[in-house]
Amino acid sequence: MDPLTWAAVAGRRQDEINNAIPEPYRLTTTLLEACNLIKLPETCGILEERELKITSHTATELLKLLHNETYTAVEVTKAFCKRAAVAHQATNCLAWIMFEQALEDAAALDAFMQTHHRPQGPLHGLPISVKECINIKHTPSTSGFIAWADNFQDDDALIVKTLRAAGAIFHVKTTDPQGLMVRNESRTSMINRLTFEFLQQALECVSNLYGLTTNPHNKKLTPGGSTGGEGALIAMRGSLIGVGSDIGGSIRAPAAFSGIYGLKPSVARIPHGGLIAVQNGMEHIVGVIGPMGICLEDLSLFCKVVLDTEPWLYEPSLIELPWKSVQTVPTESRRKLKFGIMYHDGVVVPHPPNSRCLVEISHAIKKAGHSAVTWDPALHSDLVKCISQLLSLDCGQEFIETLMAGGEPPTTLSQALLPDTDKTQLTVQDTWKLNIRRNELQIAYAEQWNAVGVDAIICPVTPSVASAHNESLYWGYTSAFNILDYPCVTVPIGTVADSDTWENFPPQSREPMSELDTTFRNFYTGPEKYKDAPIGLQIITRRLREEQAIMIASEVMGILSKSRLGVSA
Amino acid sequence: MDPLTWAAVAGRRQDEINNAIPEPYRLTTTLLEACNLIKLPETCGILEERELKITSHTATELLKLLHNETYTAVEVTKAFCKRAAVAHQATNCLAWIMFEQALEDAAALDAFMQTHHRPQGPLHGLPISVKECINIKHTPSTSGFIAWADNFQDDDALIVKTLRAAGAIFHVKTTDPQGLMVRNESRTSMINRLTFEFLQQALECVSNLYGLTTNPHNKKLTPGGSTGGEGALIAMRGSLIGVGSDIGGSIRAPAAFSGIYGLKPSVARIPHGGLIAVQNGMEHIVGVIGPMGICLEDLSLFCKVVLDTEPWLYEPSLIELPWKSVQTVPTESRRKLKFGIMYHDGVVVPHPPNSRCLVEISHAIKKAGHSAVTWDPALHSDLVKCISQLLSLDCGQEFIETLMAGGEPPTTLSQALLPDTDKTQLTVQDTWKLNIRRNELQIAYAEQWNAVGVDAIICPVTPSVASAHNESLYWGYTSAFNILDYPCVTVPIGTVADSDTWENFPPQSREPMSELDTTFRNFYTGPEKYKDAPIGLQIITRRLREEQAIMIASEVMGILSKSRLGVSA
Repeated sequence: MDPLTWAAVAGRRQDEINNAIPEPYRLTTTLLEACNLIKLPETCGILEERELKITSHTATELLKLLHNETYTAVEVTKAFCKRAAVAHQATNCLAWIMFEQALEDAAALDAFMQTHHRPQGPLHGLPISVKECINIKHTPSTSGFIAWADNFQDDDALIVKTLRAAGAIFHVKTTDPQGLMVRNESRTSMINRLTFEFLQQALECVSNLYGLTTNPHNKKLTPGGSTGGEGALIAMRGSLIGVGSDIGGSIRAPAAFSGIYGLKPSVARIPHGGLIAVQNGMEHIVGVIGPMGICLEDLSLFCKVVLDTEPWLYEPSLIELPWKSVQTVPTESRRKLKFGIMYHDGVVVPHPPNSRCLVEISHAIKKAGHSAVTWDPALHSDLVKCISQLLSLDCGQEFIETLMAGGEPPTTLSQALLPDTDKTQLTVQDTWKLNIRRNELQIAYAEQWNAVGVDAIICPVTPSVASAHNESLYWGYTSAFNILDYPCVTVPIGTVADSDTWENFPPQSREPMSELDTTFRNFYTGPEKYKDAPIGLQIITRRLREEQAIMIASEVMGILSKSRLGVSA
Repeated sequence: MDPLTWAAVAGRRQDEINNAIPEPYRLTTTLLEACNLIKLPETCGILEERELKITSHTATELLKLLHNETYTAVEVTKAFCKRAAVAHQATNCLAWIMFEQALEDAAALDAFMQTHHRPQGPLHGLPISVKECINIKHTPSTSGFIAWADNFQDDDALIVKTLRAAGAIFHVKTTDPQGLMVRNESRTSMINRLTFEFLQQALECVSNLYGLTTNPHNKKLTPGGSTGGEGALIAMRGSLIGVGSDIGGSIRAPAAFSGIYGLKPSVARIPHGGLIAVQNGMEHIVGVIGPMGICLEDLSLFCKVVLDTEPWLYEPSLIELPWKSVQTVPTESRRKLKFGIMYHDGVVVPHPPNSRCLVEISHAIKKAGHSAVTWDPALHSDLVKCISQLLSLDCGQEFIETLMAGGEPPTTLSQALLPDTDKTQLTVQDTWKLNIRRNELQIAYAEQWNAVGVDAIICPVTPSVASAHNESLYWGYTSAFNILDYPCVTVPIGTVADSDTWENFPPQSREPMSELDTTFRNFYTGPEKYKDAPIGLQIITRRLREEQAIMIASEVMGILSKSRLGVSA
């Protein structure tokens, strides 16, 4: 271990990142004073007109323009490097910068195009951003640990290898929180007062190593986590598609908090190998890699390109299940769909902005000729307890050891996780009993799904919209679908409105449903606190039906858009 | 616990089974004196001519004749009850008899047919046998434990429910060994002398509860295990399709030893819920349920009927992967296939009969225009060590506790498994490290598969053909494909011949490759010891390609049949 103190290691890393921003991409600090910085790329003067145009497309559109030689890969890459630099200065979202390598890679692609007049692959020339815990060769994968700051990788993760072979360019890696978990002291002391059963993790983005990442829509709010850097970056179009990971909500919370789209696929559809984190080899709950982006079409493009390479031949735990283009899936949108709307999960009631959007969606769905029923959350409390146990089987031991290896202060959370009695040390047989419990819950949920006969569930992503820093205390709305292994698509529905008050959207139950519920009710003091915060919801389908989830999400967004325009179905 | 001694419990259960055989189905003991009893159903005089005819079809043929009303379900069921009774008296293969209920169920199906002139489901009227650890309502699931002798079930396993809804009739449950593991003392003391790394289990069929099941081709030999009763029963056509389970070879060894076909599918294709065994909830290696039968077409029929019911809607750990009929799979048989022939696994060399058949198959394959290369077994030793560890994570604790609960003598094997030092007690983190090791081996094997570019591997099922009792000491040829999770089809290739000597088929390595190898070389004293024993081999494809495995097995059997008839390709 480097004899440097943790603060020196962090300072050095943050300097490395900031120094990699070319002088012409640097902003004057006065530009960064506003609370909402989402429009900064358009207003700061760093990007030229053509660069703003380049970064205004969807990935799908941009690829067409790259492949018909409207744009060169170099000019596209440069535009996104500039925009990523602006986003970083606004939100502290980058964990590593590879602008020079990216421009070299782009030049090689341009040379190929000039010779052959065809793209080198379906993603030819598209800059893609990657969560920093996912391996890219010659860059560090740290999971936000000081101890791992210089954990430079010799090889790409399979997902990176796959995207690179398809012609993607990697210009930046993005921030995640310490150990992919939260570490804030005020927050964790709050956890200590709550029951351990509802242990939550990873829904914000702060570490000793990288510092605090903020929400581009409102710097007083978190961009979510653990894939928080991606959320902030993509919201500012510093890239159009990002690669995140999710074991309890880490794609969905930041997508919702930053107002973009995200897909948490089922386990074993998208390559997962080459991700550095603690609990490696733990398979009671398996994390997934998935895309975040600015539209549903781009998420689908990502999955199609990846699965077209037959990754199951190289990562044999993957299922040989090619991506079904929307056209070949039974055209759900032409038949009557049945939605389950989960207005709350029985543990923590959602804040008014989320409730308002659920009510609006339910009305719009029915008006469009589909049906919507209230989804009974009876199983959710047990699902969240069970996943909290399954993710704490080693009592946080590896997490603590890694903190100590880096000389980082063990936080209050870390202390809470330290094994202090023999009772907390689970035996191998205990873990099997938890598996049985998990499987029973999965079967019970499937039975409920069969009995009600829904096509999809719609529910909040967290009780709050983008929370104030240190207030993302509950991950039950997302983690329930990790233990169930259902695909979830996060969609942006709107923005917090002045009418989003408890008076207008009272809690679904008068009495608090849990201690956490009380805490969350108190957090929401009114819409001012969450000014400009995006509102995201989740759309969930049965296990392994990622295509259906995207298609139904697309139908819902279409319905909502028409409904808001006053167009009848 | 019943105050009866274990011997009394076993005696009572064996009496219950034997007393359920109607008087007219009972054989005189002189008929049972021969060593080879495979033809007994034809010669014993219990079955009438028409009943012999009924039991001579494949399941696929028989279903056509049931559905066009050539046969009634009652006469078909009666024929198989008789034949199963004969098989049991010859081999002790039954663990529970349900003749009366089966005939009632058959009568109900006949009544439906008389009214509607159409079958109630695709398996209308077909008797199917089930390994006793798989739940059938109102019958005991014991896994061969005395303690569980009266573990009567309230509900069917999902696989039984599915088959029953398709019109199948359940007439018998079949034997398995103590705790689905071996228990013989002479055998286990031999294990103690061998390295723990190659711990083997479950490839014979003997328990305190049911006693010894023998091979119908040669009573001095084992029918294999753990699905040993099914092997013996189906070989004597006491049923045409049986339901087995396999976590290390338990479908494939008995299929090979009794000269029938068996499919070990990948995990999560065929419903697995409702199976009673120790290590419930252990998921480092997951056992599977699969069919055993008299032809490949019947195995495919079984899978198709089961998957047509969409079992993933009820058991959400299953993959939504409908059965692809042979027609819709790319017609492998029309293109050149590449086979890897694994002549030995680097741990134990196969006995001469297996080697002879591998050489014959390799020649026939090439003559038919396909290619065959020698498969390098370099990874197999590590695969077998790893699965042995993964299946012993609790040091056999549940197994021992269940033996004790039944007052059964803890055997030498049990003693060997008892945790005697802290060192053998694995921590939760140790189990994660083993998962990582397992995954590395899976990836390395996939890389070898990709590099060599084979369509299938052909290899022995065990080093021996059906072994003498207590000599099935090595399960590496089968368990390697459980840790890899590749589908395997066992096919019957022939019978031990007088020319099957070490002189004619010398070991592939002059020096023994392991201590176990020496043991196995000494076992094979010549073909007389294995008189009339069938020879089975395995055909293995990539994970989740069950249809391809069956299709390639069919191609191989066709090639071999033509080659033996002297027909050119």
